[in-house]
Amino acid sequence: MSVTITPNLDLMLNRARVASRQVARCDRVAALQAIADALLTHRVEILAGNARDVESERRRGTPASLVDRLALSESRLEGISEAVHQVALLPDPLHRILDGWQTEAGLSVRKVTVPFGVIGMIYESRPNVTVDAAVLALKAGSAAVLRGSSNALESNRVIVRIMREALQSVDVPADAVQLIDSPDRSLVTALLAARGRVDLVIPRGGSSLINHVVETAKVPVIETGVGNCHVFVDRSADLAKAHSIAINAKVQRPGVCNAAETLLVHEQVATEFLPGTIEVLHEHGVEVRGCELTRDLVPGVAPADEADWAEEYLDLKLAVKVVASLEEAIEHITRYGTMHSEAIVTEDRKSAVRFQEGVDAAAVFVNASTRFTDGFEFGFGAEIGISTQKLHARGPMGLSEIVTYKYLIDGDGQIRGA
Amino acid sequence: MSVTITPNLDLMLNRARVASRQVARCDRVAALQAIADALLTHRVEILAGNARDVESERRRGTPASLVDRLALSESRLEGISEAVHQVALLPDPLHRILDGWQTEAGLSVRKVTVPFGVIGMIYESRPNVTVDAAVLALKAGSAAVLRGSSNALESNRVIVRIMREALQSVDVPADAVQLIDSPDRSLVTALLAARGRVDLVIPRGGSSLINHVVETAKVPVIETGVGNCHVFVDRSADLAKAHSIAINAKVQRPGVCNAAETLLVHEQVATEFLPGTIEVLHEHGVEVRGCELTRDLVPGVAPADEADWAEEYLDLKLAVKVVASLEEAIEHITRYGTMHSEAIVTEDRKSAVRFQEGVDAAAVFVNASTRFTDGFEFGFGAEIGISTQKLHARGPMGLSEIVTYKYLIDGDGQIRGA
Repeated sequence: MSVTITPNLDLMLNRARVASRQVARCDRVAALQAIADALLTHRVEILAGNARDVESERRRGTPASLVDRLALSESRLEGISEAVHQVALLPDPLHRILDGWQTEAGLSVRKVTVPFGVIGMIYESRPNVTVDAAVLALKAGSAAVLRGSSNALESNRVIVRIMREALQSVDVPADAVQLIDSPDRSLVTALLAARGRVDLVIPRGGSSLINHVVETAKVPVIETGVGNCHVFVDRSADLAKAHSIAINAKVQRPGVCNAAETLLVHEQVATEFLPGTIEVLHEHGVEVRGCELTRDLVPGVAPADEADWAEEYLDLKLAVKVVASLEEAIEHITRYGTMHSEAIVTEDRKSAVRFQEGVDAAAVFVNASTRFTDGFEFGFGAEIGISTQKLHARGPMGLSEIVTYKYLIDGDGQIRGA
Repeated sequence: MSVTITPNLDLMLNRARVASRQVARCDRVAALQAIADALLTHRVEILAGNARDVESERRRGTPASLVDRLALSESRLEGISEAVHQVALLPDPLHRILDGWQTEAGLSVRKVTVPFGVIGMIYESRPNVTVDAAVLALKAGSAAVLRGSSNALESNRVIVRIMREALQSVDVPADAVQLIDSPDRSLVTALLAARGRVDLVIPRGGSSLINHVVETAKVPVIETGVGNCHVFVDRSADLAKAHSIAINAKVQRPGVCNAAETLLVHEQVATEFLPGTIEVLHEHGVEVRGCELTRDLVPGVAPADEADWAEEYLDLKLAVKVVASLEEAIEHITRYGTMHSEAIVTEDRKSAVRFQEGVDAAAVFVNASTRFTDGFEFGFGAEIGISTQKLHARGPMGLSEIVTYKYLIDGDGQIRGA
């Protein structure tokens, strides 16, 4: 299990391991409250660091919408701090007895939640993820090793320093939160190779980041977030519901993973449904790309090709396809979907059941928008990502998904017979 | 997600995927019973195929104990068939509602167990694993792609052909069970790279096989089996219990992963405990390698070096170390253990609690032999391996550990607000 890693990362991981043992035993509520308070106390420093990132991006000519995602403000910081307070007060995910029984040999078995230990987060999102990831890992009893995007480096450095100081102020080891603050890519590779040193890595970001992590990692990984999600309007759909669900799933927040990217419509309702819905999509600024039948029904729709069915636009774009049956819809989703969130709109009980059974995705909706796949909407109180793999966790991951368990077995001298 | 894989494996994985969809919906009890019966009906063919493997190994000069592990007999086949009947009748791990609630938006959420889909098994054990793995995957609703060891190839070919015929006889697609029957290693590499095509790979075998799989795989893997397990005799131990647990954990079946490899003894009881216990170990043919203190107490014990603390002997060998405290024992286990099974023998409640909390392993025993880490002993009714990783499953894995889940969400037209 020996791993050759760069000296710096090696040191970080050693420190993270030592710190992780203390995190599980410390007052994690106090630790998180100290972080929440410090983020406000030190707002001037944080905003100054963030301003340097924003300025560099502006100079580099980054589009304003992307710069805006990077930018913090006093009110955003207040929201981040408030969210930390909320996580602090969530039920403790550790020490929960998931199951328990007595074996034939008379052993008492308890299956109890325990921390992973060291959790690595690799992300390219806004600086609030730096706080989110650290705080959720801590609440789950683990140490966090963070690797954010280089364009948020100044923000992340200040935020991590302030979180570490806050931890120290309540006698929690600062090394429970560490930032890989070099843009050197080989450090990421080394982190992903550190078997036995990192217990779990969660990548958050675009598909190229996630693919890179999954292809490279030798440590356990949970794939997150890539969502090529579909809304299927069945022939038995309530078309008013179908209309509002299709619009909501596409336009309410087009840049996120649970937004719809393709609309599938049963041919028996296409004529009635599509013209009005596409009109409203156009009014919302959505670029619609359709199959031939769609284009016959609605003039002025651009043609969709093979690439459109596979693409996660993350934008005001929607592919539309008319299908001959529920089974064709399921086949299409099986072929192009990313096992994230899929929805059917139907008033037919049989169609609903068949769709939920036949579609292999983390979340399969009947008569609701795909946008509900979300830790907060699910009532988890927090979310560290949305898993699109089948191992360990599927769908929104809250605190319960970033702990593991062990078996505690109590006997009275039992030995095993032949 | 496109993967360049060899044409044959590509075809196999396509067929496995198609078959997997039918497995989840077919009568899996009938499928398993057909397999159980066919293994007996075709015993002559199976034993003939097995005899060819055994003969080649003999000619190659393989030690008799290893040849014996490969050899099937009429009575072994009956045992294998009986085990399949037992798995057939275990409770169905699919369609179980693990959790369910209503969200604030009024959505009804059900978290329901579903199959993985395609499960790959890479193993080097006896031909009975071929049956075990196929049958457990089928019972869990998945298709199995099997890769056994080359020295069992003839046996595996016959067994897999017979299982496939049995499936067909009850209208279950034969491709639900497939064997990679070429010794070409690149097929294993391709299998491990087939993201989106293979949902889970479980390696079973020695540490070099498992390391190879974990280092190579881009598909989700559950690491199994490497067990450097310890028994720690606390100063408060009932020394009679400690004696029988130490002997049992080492000698009852030394070649398996849950056998003890190192005995740790608190210095306050070492003088009383070690001489008698080591004497009995010697009587069982165990080669004891000790630390200096052990060697002072028991003349004739060979010296243990650093490599001994780390080694999984899987043999009648035991390392023995005297430690100054419970904390030193925990430190030693943290450093050298493989997170499999660890035991303390103690009558002190505080020591028991501290050991169970401080030791990070799948199964932490108080006053019982490490040999109890086993799906059957745990009451799972079956076992596909013992996980030593923290993601997804730890410890013995039964049917519940080789299914995944999805969220089924039912609404009435809900869309998401700002």
